[in-house]
Amino acid sequence: MTRRVGVWLFGARGSVATTTIAGAAALHHGIPPAGVVTELPAFAGTDLIPLDALVFGGHDVVETPLAKQVERLIAGGVLPPGLDRLITAELAEAERNITLLPTAECAPAAPSHQRDLAGGQLALVHRMAEDIRAFRLRNDLSQVVAINVASTESPYEVPMTTAAELREALASPEVLPASSIGALAAFEAGAAYVDFTPSTSIRPAAVREWAVEKGLPYGGQDAKTGETLVKSVLAPMFAARALPVHAWSGTNLLGGGDGATLADPKAAESKSISKERGLAEMLGDVAGDVHIDYVDPMGDWKTAWDHVLFSGFLGVRMTLQFTWQGCDSALAAPLVLDLARLSALALDRGHVGAMPFLGFYFKDPIESTEHALARQYDELLRWTRSC
Amino acid sequence: MTRRVGVWLFGARGSVATTTIAGAAALHHGIPPAGVVTELPAFAGTDLIPLDALVFGGHDVVETPLAKQVERLIAGGVLPPGLDRLITAELAEAERNITLLPTAECAPAAPSHQRDLAGGQLALVHRMAEDIRAFRLRNDLSQVVAINVASTESPYEVPMTTAAELREALASPEVLPASSIGALAAFEAGAAYVDFTPSTSIRPAAVREWAVEKGLPYGGQDAKTGETLVKSVLAPMFAARALPVHAWSGTNLLGGGDGATLADPKAAESKSISKERGLAEMLGDVAGDVHIDYVDPMGDWKTAWDHVLFSGFLGVRMTLQFTWQGCDSALAAPLVLDLARLSALALDRGHVGAMPFLGFYFKDPIESTEHALARQYDELLRWTRSC
Amino acid sequence: MTRRVGVWLFGARGSVATTTIAGAAALHHGIPPAGVVTELPAFAGTDLIPLDALVFGGHDVVETPLAKQVERLIAGGVLPPGLDRLITAELAEAERNITLLPTAECAPAAPSHQRDLAGGQLALVHRMAEDIRAFRLRNDLSQVVAINVASTESPYEVPMTTAAELREALASPEVLPASSIGALAAFEAGAAYVDFTPSTSIRPAAVREWAVEKGLPYGGQDAKTGETLVKSVLAPMFAARALPVHAWSGTNLLGGGDGATLADPKAAESKSISKERGLAEMLGDVAGDVHIDYVDPMGDWKTAWDHVLFSGFLGVRMTLQFTWQGCDSALAAPLVLDLARLSALALDRGHVGAMPFLGFYFKDPIESTEHALARQYDELLRWTRSC
Amino acid sequence: MTRRVGVWLFGARGSVATTTIAGAAALHHGIPPAGVVTELPAFAGTDLIPLDALVFGGHDVVETPLAKQVERLIAGGVLPPGLDRLITAELAEAERNITLLPTAECAPAAPSHQRDLAGGQLALVHRMAEDIRAFRLRNDLSQVVAINVASTESPYEVPMTTAAELREALASPEVLPASSIGALAAFEAGAAYVDFTPSTSIRPAAVREWAVEKGLPYGGQDAKTGETLVKSVLAPMFAARALPVHAWSGTNLLGGGDGATLADPKAAESKSISKERGLAEMLGDVAGDVHIDYVDPMGDWKTAWDHVLFSGFLGVRMTLQFTWQGCDSALAAPLVLDLARLSALALDRGHVGAMPFLGFYFKDPIESTEHALARQYDELLRWTRSC
Ligand SMILES: NC(=O)c1ccc[n+]([C@@H]2O[C@H](COP(=O)([O-])OP(=O)(O)OC[C@H]3O[C@@H](n4cnc5c(N)ncnc54)[C@H](O)[C@@H]3O)[C@@H](O)[C@H]2O)c1
Ligand SMILES: NC(=O)c1ccc[n+]([C@@H]2O[C@H](COP(=O)([O-])OP(=O)(O)OC[C@H]3O[C@@H](n4cnc5c(N)ncnc54)[C@H](O)[C@@H]3O)[C@@H](O)[C@H]2O)c1
Ligand SMILES: NC(=O)c1ccc[n+]([C@@H]2O[C@H](COP(=O)([O-])OP(=O)(O)OC[C@H]3O[C@@H](n4cnc5c(N)ncnc54)[C@H](O)[C@@H]3O)[C@@H](O)[C@H]2O)c1
Ligand SMILES: NC(=O)c1ccc[n+]([C@@H]2O[C@H](COP(=O)([O-])OP(=O)(O)OC[C@H]3O[C@@H](n4cnc5c(N)ncnc54)[C@H](O)[C@@H]3O)[C@@H](O)[C@H]2O)c1
Ligand code: NA
Ligand code: NA
Repeated sequence: MTRRVGVWLFGARGSVATTTIAGAAALHHGIPPAGVVTELPAFAGTDLIPLDALVFGGHDVVETPLAKQVERLIAGGVLPPGLDRLITAELAEAERNITLLPTAECAPAAPSHQRDLAGGQLALVHRMAEDIRAFRLRNDLSQVVAINVASTESPYEVPMTTAAELREALASPEVLPASSIGALAAFEAGAAYVDFTPSTSIRPAAVREWAVEKGLPYGGQDAKTGETLVKSVLAPMFAARALPVHAWSGTNLLGGGDGATLADPKAAESKSISKERGLAEMLGDVAGDVHIDYVDPMGDWKTAWDHVLFSGFLGVRMTLQFTWQGCDSALAAPLVLDLARLSALALDRGHVGAMPFLGFYFKDPIESTEHALARQYDELLRWTRSC
Repeated sequence: MTRRVGVWLFGARGSVATTTIAGAAALHHGIPPAGVVTELPAFAGTDLIPLDALVFGGHDVVETPLAKQVERLIAGGVLPPGLDRLITAELAEAERNITLLPTAECAPAAPSHQRDLAGGQLALVHRMAEDIRAFRLRNDLSQVVAINVASTESPYEVPMTTAAELREALASPEVLPASSIGALAAFEAGAAYVDFTPSTSIRPAAVREWAVEKGLPYGGQDAKTGETLVKSVLAPMFAARALPVHAWSGTNLLGGGDGATLADPKAAESKSISKERGLAEMLGDVAGDVHIDYVDPMGDWKTAWDHVLFSGFLGVRMTLQFTWQGCDSALAAPLVLDLARLSALALDRGHVGAMPFLGFYFKDPIESTEHALARQYDELLRWTRSC
Repeated sequence: MTRRVGVWLFGARGSVATTTIAGAAALHHGIPPAGVVTELPAFAGTDLIPLDALVFGGHDVVETPLAKQVERLIAGGVLPPGLDRLITAELAEAERNITLLPTAECAPAAPSHQRDLAGGQLALVHRMAEDIRAFRLRNDLSQVVAINVASTESPYEVPMTTAAELREALASPEVLPASSIGALAAFEAGAAYVDFTPSTSIRPAAVREWAVEKGLPYGGQDAKTGETLVKSVLAPMFAARALPVHAWSGTNLLGGGDGATLADPKAAESKSISKERGLAEMLGDVAGDVHIDYVDPMGDWKTAWDHVLFSGFLGVRMTLQFTWQGCDSALAAPLVLDLARLSALALDRGHVGAMPFLGFYFKDPIESTEHALARQYDELLRWTRSC
Repeated sequence: MTRRVGVWLFGARGSVATTTIAGAAALHHGIPPAGVVTELPAFAGTDLIPLDALVFGGHDVVETPLAKQVERLIAGGVLPPGLDRLITAELAEAERNITLLPTAECAPAAPSHQRDLAGGQLALVHRMAEDIRAFRLRNDLSQVVAINVASTESPYEVPMTTAAELREALASPEVLPASSIGALAAFEAGAAYVDFTPSTSIRPAAVREWAVEKGLPYGGQDAKTGETLVKSVLAPMFAARALPVHAWSGTNLLGGGDGATLADPKAAESKSISKERGLAEMLGDVAGDVHIDYVDPMGDWKTAWDHVLFSGFLGVRMTLQFTWQGCDSALAAPLVLDLARLSALALDRGHVGAMPFLGFYFKDPIESTEHALARQYDELLRWTRSC
């Protein structure tokens, strides 16, 4: 029997998660795997597990059934009409693997409500790790990869600098935000961890050390699927052509759950920081702001407009503008599949610590300052094909 | 004394040529070399000759003084106000090195007027080669690099397949278009040859063989400075992300001399062919047209709008649009300087035949099918740094 | 019992016709009448018949069932999912009222195939008029309004200048294109006639005289629903602000049936002529081309990009660009409903001849040179409210 | 001798003022009056004074010579190269008519520094009125029109509700912002007053009453020259076509002095309020934000991108986007000339109080809720032509 790999999604009922689960099911039924990078011919013959070896489960703080989310995504033009009838069985299977987290403890704004959490946050880590272990046993999985696709949190300062300090502090409540608790739970359960969001999760050194102590790989952060993806090829173009960029301004309009979350200026701050880091690392100091506007009637669609002011020979000013109109979840979901396969391979290879070779997928690639897509792609391919 | 290298420009009084000559002079006066790729830190320490070792001359079929062209380009916002007063000496020097070609023989539509050309086109080749040799002697140049920046010609079929056949045929008039005559003249004079345009020039195998027989390098064709440049990073982005592109449509609006030439549907055909080849080689079969519209009031400025229809996961349709607003000559001129330095290096290294490592600069890179800018850049850098 | 008014559609199985029929049915079921101008509060209290008094029928040269077209339009995102189940009865009713025309006689390229048409084209006019009369009787209609939403034809020269001459010539085949035959059939049946397309139809003076002889109103041509609509407010803006427009360039990308028709350069010519007339009448001589590109994967959607080069004080150059992304049929259908109601009112009022007060709806308003939307709207409202 | 009319500019050394003064001079020298609406044929034969009857003067808080500003505007592409040499005499004349205001008393943030202003703000009003009267006498002017083109102020609450209350309160310092002080000074000097900015000026009822008591006309506010101008034709288009607009989002990028002022969020607030009012009055409640970003390298140029999400028949979603790239001062200056002529005519006609017929020029037309450009134009023309 072929081995099966678990994909544990934090935020398992969100748009990205639902599109991933429904999409993987659709692929079983023969829809072509558009957007799945690891299905490109270049990746043929590598040791990646087949897509249908993936089994989905996860945590969420809401109980909306997956089937209802699928319906909503069909109405919004994210998923094709009729898909719901095709994949009822797969949805039901994933539904059984989702565990509810009590909002009071785990929602983005949770720490302030955890005053009375018996056993501190460490108890919560262990309870969540237990959920992941149970998922593995119940489904007879050889490995589990945990991926954070939960709502973006506000920035959060973690003062502890080592795993040891952190472990001690976790006897209390209010030490870590939910994303970092999830990361520790993954490591306690022996799972790889990838952060698809710009939340705190593995950002603190103490959390990373924890992963290394457990001998596990981690990767992230904040998938690049739209404006930033385009930036990661245009900025290197200007650099390679020695064309000075004076200002890069961007406006992102989006609705949906993610948009509603980012309507909170604090959550938006996490996103903006991660969006802007790359540009500075590619082009140095450049003027211009990035706006993220919640526009409810946009639904699950996003429009980004970017305006680049640069100069050519002898300082003459020129501009490049682009408008990207995409459906975020339909861009994100195939990348979640890629990341699951690639992290499973890293586990197989005994890779420990950061996975900078996944930078291709992220706005803010962990332990890497390379943002140029073409170089990131080459690095990803090289790593996947190695040994 | 440092050695000096000659840059022989076919089309020496055009916008690109004038901006190149005036711009090189401006750099001597301390204006920063924006757009000159070989001035990037990555190229430091290579064997490229310094920019101020370049001496300019060339052929043209019109007599408009360079100084007048500079004035026109200042009024059009291509060159900075006041530049004319700064570079009078350099313009005068280049002016002395420009030789007039009789229109009847060399203009794009020339072959049909060459009925009575004594000695056939071969005599013309020799006369033009003589001009180049005289330029070298007069200016005490160690080498000459010829670059074609003349008006784009209509497509032209050359039936001869070997250099020998071609040499024989050239006893008659009307065998080759002006661009190919220029290429042969360069080879006869021992110069390297680079085609910045999509004209016939070195396209026929017989012309290339001629270069090889003379032990000389050649490169081209059709510099990528705007829409195609952007395509050469966006198309690989879609490919790397496994996002199927269904249609790529483009409209280019331009005025100026180049625009007036391309208002002729035949000349525009040469341009469109070279513009579209890359997309097909990067993405396969994609729907959509490319328009080149002459819009006289645009002057020396060009606007390109591109619309890309692609799909993501499960076939959901999305779009990317971009608008590029650039001044063509100000984008082209620094590349002419790059190509002069790089071809001089090729001569130094005794490189014979095609220079595919210059593909970074071209829409239709000769003897190469690589169009992805990032890979082309890496190849260029590798070659420049080698030995 | 309230009186009922017939709407006879030439091209009754096309996208515009189907969206009109399905949409009118949807309104009966309570969907709000977005895009129906005569439902604006400003039109309340006028003598317009209620929307649910309209009964649909028509001619087409194909037999694809309406229900199948509705399905296709739902898949293409033009009609809302689930609509088909809601309006089965209404579709069936309209289906019964559609008469097949033999392609050989009536398709756009028909005249050349009509060599053997017994009785010449006049016989065809009478046969088609009979179909319309039968529709009226069968459905007990007080009036009929005929609207041409058939495929755009190539431009066509009609040499006859009076109705009398024309009547005589029609004893032969190949005199008039299908659209004009349809117009005459309408007049013979006592129906008002409106041309939603840029075809020949009522363009010849002889055809218009025919209408006047029958005491009937006619209107058109070529509905403005996208790029031209936007132009009709932007061009007057430049004029009112005394800002000289130097060039106006446009590119239209579209798929669908209309796109496929316009892929034929001759049909596209009809469209371009009608698109460009307005601009010249509003702004005088302006540079720039308009492209209409058939891009099959766009389906029923259209994207138009326009680039306007104008100047401000002392000649400084500025630009305005817009991108319109619309679904043509969903913009057209509510206007068909408006035109039906308004033409019925004209019949009621005994209006004879051209209806220039409908210019608000058209790219090329018949017997009017007013293209500014705001003025056209005022004129429409004034007429509707009068008496 | 023809009578001459004075134009007193608050902010006389700013970009708009300088472009107005230099531009009026350029027109004397024969440059065509692009952008001057009152020069359109429609306005011929009205009682407007000729453009060369205008004499310029004003207040500013800085001393930068006009000639230097003209140089800066030439370098920035706002004024044509060479203009400075042509209009030296006119610049010198205007220069003599500009009076320096002490920053401490009049700068936008002034009130807090006016603690020790002897005689309170009323003394300042009288001193400034004296400057205007002296300008009239010195230049033998039949009338003076004051126009506020000073830097945009922050919003400011004025609690006094009648002119009488206000007069009393002005014995103290810190009662009114500089713009309102300027308006009162104009009224005291018998001048008409027009506010080109969104500052407080004539917004308080007490200030307007003051004008009425003096029998003088006032108009404003905040000239519409770019994004809002375009909105004022596009929004009525959607309304006239019964197309529901769901969201209208906008981003404005600008540099220059105005940009630097608006980089202060308080000043930007004044601008945003005035920008958004119109949309709500035209379309009702619509989602979407408007951003004003200071992008220093844009210089005197502004780019606005707007994204409109609307729906057509049966709710299908569509979008319109536009990008406006303009030079603000070159759009504003000809309107200042219009407003000067029109206000002089109002003075002639003894018009007292608000001039709502100038709404055509403003984002936030005083005592009017009409924002549709076409209607505003008709109203303007009707008023100008009346009597
Ligand atoms: N293209 C993309 O879609 C894209 C790109 C980059 C990053 N992301 C990130 O992916 C995340 C998911 O996006 P989405 O569109 O699916 O958002 P969403 O709002 O639809 O889904 C988020 C889900 O997370 C759940 N959640 C919230 N707090 C949780 C917690 N503490 N533990 C477990 N679940 C929790 C929510 O209940 C919800 O079901 C966001 O952070 C987004 O920024 C998405
Ligand atoms: N970004 C760019 O500017 C760019 C990019 C790619 C290619 N090109 C190509 O570069 C060429 C030059 O562009 P430009 O804008 O300078 O055009 P231009 O019209 O300003 O100049 C062309 C010059 O060539 C001269 N000429 C014509 N026939 C000649 C002949 N047989 N021999 C010698 N001179 C001749 C003309 O007299 C003119 O001076 C064009 O072919 C253009 O397509 C330019
Ligand atoms: N926004 C818009 O959709 C819009 C705007 C302006 C004009 N129009 C015009 O409306 C027309 C219809 O557009 P569409 O998108 O529905 O096109 P379509 O191709 O979907 O439909 C055209 C229909 O006309 C039928 N037809 C062809 N020749 C005929 C004939 N001689 N008699 C009767 N029927 C005939 C075809 O079989 C087809 O069913 C086109 O001419 C188009 O240019 C549409
Ligand atoms: N298209 C346009 O340019 C446009 C459109 C609408 C409104 N406006 C408004 O016009 C105004 C002028 O714009 P600009 O681009 O010329 O700005 P600017 O910054 O170039 O000029 C403003 C001038 O006002 C002066 N000033 C500041 N406080 C003053 C005071 N209390 N009294 C007198 N002078 C004072 C400044 O010193 C400066 O010279 C701004 O408020 C702007 O928002 C401009
Ligand atoms: Na090639
Ligand atoms: Na108002």
